[in-house]
Amino acid sequence: MIYLDYAATTPMCEPALTALQKLSSDIYANSRSLHDGGEMANRILDYSREQLAHSIGGQANGLYFTSGGSESNWLAIYSLLLGLPKGKRHFVTTTVEHPSIISTAEYVKQIGFEVSFVAPDKNGLITSEALLNKLRPDTGLVSIQHANSETGVIQPLAELSCELKERGILLHTDAVQTFGKLPINILQLGVDAISFASHKIYGPKGIGAVYIRPDVFWKPVFPHTSHEKGFRPGTVNVPGAGAFAAAAEWIIKRQDQQSQKYEHLRKRLVCDVKEQKLSLQPALSNSTAKILPHIFGCFFPPYEGQYVMLESNRKGICLSTGTACSAEKQEPSQALTSLGYSKEKARQFIRISFGYETTDADIASLLQVLKQLQKNKKGAAAIARRS
Amino acid sequence: MIYLDYAATTPMCEPALTALQKLSSDIYANSRSLHDGGEMANRILDYSREQLAHSIGGQANGLYFTSGGSESNWLAIYSLLLGLPKGKRHFVTTTVEHPSIISTAEYVKQIGFEVSFVAPDKNGLITSEALLNKLRPDTGLVSIQHANSETGVIQPLAELSCELKERGILLHTDAVQTFGKLPINILQLGVDAISFASHKIYGPKGIGAVYIRPDVFWKPVFPHTSHEKGFRPGTVNVPGAGAFAAAAEWIIKRQDQQSQKYEHLRKRLVCDVKEQKLSLQPALSNSTAKILPHIFGCFFPPYEGQYVMLESNRKGICLSTGTACSAEKQEPSQALTSLGYSKEKARQFIRISFGYETTDADIASLLQVLKQLQKNKKGAAAIARRS
Repeated sequence: MIYLDYAATTPMCEPALTALQKLSSDIYANSRSLHDGGEMANRILDYSREQLAHSIGGQANGLYFTSGGSESNWLAIYSLLLGLPKGKRHFVTTTVEHPSIISTAEYVKQIGFEVSFVAPDKNGLITSEALLNKLRPDTGLVSIQHANSETGVIQPLAELSCELKERGILLHTDAVQTFGKLPINILQLGVDAISFASHKIYGPKGIGAVYIRPDVFWKPVFPHTSHEKGFRPGTVNVPGAGAFAAAAEWIIKRQDQQSQKYEHLRKRLVCDVKEQKLSLQPALSNSTAKILPHIFGCFFPPYEGQYVMLESNRKGICLSTGTACSAEKQEPSQALTSLGYSKEKARQFIRISFGYETTDADIASLLQVLKQLQKNKKGAAAIARRS
Repeated sequence: MIYLDYAATTPMCEPALTALQKLSSDIYANSRSLHDGGEMANRILDYSREQLAHSIGGQANGLYFTSGGSESNWLAIYSLLLGLPKGKRHFVTTTVEHPSIISTAEYVKQIGFEVSFVAPDKNGLITSEALLNKLRPDTGLVSIQHANSETGVIQPLAELSCELKERGILLHTDAVQTFGKLPINILQLGVDAISFASHKIYGPKGIGAVYIRPDVFWKPVFPHTSHEKGFRPGTVNVPGAGAFAAAAEWIIKRQDQQSQKYEHLRKRLVCDVKEQKLSLQPALSNSTAKILPHIFGCFFPPYEGQYVMLESNRKGICLSTGTACSAEKQEPSQALTSLGYSKEKARQFIRISFGYETTDADIASLLQVLKQLQKNKKGAAAIARRS
């Protein structure tokens, strides 16, 4: 199986597997228990918290463990909204967010917050102008993804955060897709809160985190919660947290080297597509936006993405038609229709995403499949003409 | 270290450790991805779902994975409340529930539901009479724990569920503390929904489940959620789910044998306490209630529970003063004050809980520590009298 769906989720790296195995065997007490067993678990938790917080330029006391990216987004946004001063009831996000943010926006609407959505420009970017247009005197919080999971477009957070800071508006970012892939420093980005997930960085599933600047006020969603300083209820998954921290350390050490590899694979793909005269078209090919090198969002007309995905799968290649969190849905991705693509065109979308184990040979195999598809199409057209 | 805090959390059993390790290595794709990688993950998930559902006499299509017990309780109650017919806005629970249920009750109050709390009688039991007293024409859902995590009292769910069924009111139960310890059959208990957690049954932390009878209507808490049929958003922790199912199979096979062992340890403890003239008093010693054999809630007057816990810890024995989810809180447990104990008496509470590795020698070591404590106390009193 050639796996080209690393943006959906990743296999675990050795250090994370080892940490998970070891901690699952040895450290089992509840980290909130006050005896030595609990104390041991709590020490692992503190260490993991520190490691992760430091990896984004933060402090341990701002980091809260969650069960994953979707929950991180929900808890971060909701807790920050609850902490806003009276009169700040307006939340702004974008039309290209992960389904968990769109869902959170709908949820907070139901409980009395007002929500506005900013659309990206034709480059896939959220511009200051578009953002400022949506701000109101009662806007308290904005959430803008660090990069899109389907197109890979990286948002200019440092620029946008300046505008928000001037106006006293908080900024949360969903960095699930960028953590471990891009250098992240919360001070440089100017964000107040950030979400990330372990399973996108070769760590275990079922664990994630939120970082909130310690001087930012938030309120617990769940009354009387004692775990994670009230941020999230439930026994903390200490082995998961330790393995998450191990994965983060592992991936960050290899960040530059891997980025270069992904750039190379990307160039190779683009080059070979041209050489082999394949109709594969990168989404946002003329965009001025910076794009995550491991995500290659594209179209292979005239085929629907679903068909290309299934045909590739028949040949042992795993790719996707977009975020797995909205797989099986009938509607094409909002991240694509927001860019001005028609629903029909958006249905042609496929996402190829590289990872630690991707090789040149994998790209060659993929192109072989696409070539065959294109050839079959031409053959079918010729037969149709003859008959 | 002698661990006598199995009711807080358990070490992982071999089959669960093996499953976690193997699945974490081999099965990594997103279970919602439509390629073969996703299909493999989904097959493991389906199998785990089936195993767990069958273990409580349910069907696979009623089981939803969550990140643990607290989340299970919250999502189950909230989803069921949202699914109630218009006009049913009243939720009833008890004063002795786990903090996650009390917190959920507070939460749903904030968003417009009305909540009533039933208190147990002096035996620790929720009686039909007390329950019926709280029901109203607009009561739609009741949540009653299967057993208390501090006193071990088992509630007469089969009896209570009859009363509720007659009145068309749904019953949810928090079975986090009983699953794998007592035989559970949802039809015999007559419950409509049930929560459980992996880390209490020697499975990994960070995974739990809710079972809802497939013919019971509920509504997703989070709009547009695709995972777990809309019940819970976020990439499913497939290795965790597989390891949870492995732990369930392991513990259920040993249920009878372990129950007998716990009964024996309990008798041994009570017997030796008497013989050694220790002032250890079981909570609810005159109760007619059935009590989980592995939980021994007690007082060791005149000492505060916190002191006994810390002194035991100094001698390498881990026990607790109540549920770990409210550790470090200043207030004594509501589960105890609800039984009529004064706050002062409730502060004397300690919980000794047995597990798979507990031996007679562990009980002897614990009694040794308590004996020493009692002796020191008498010595101190004698010195005080002399001086």
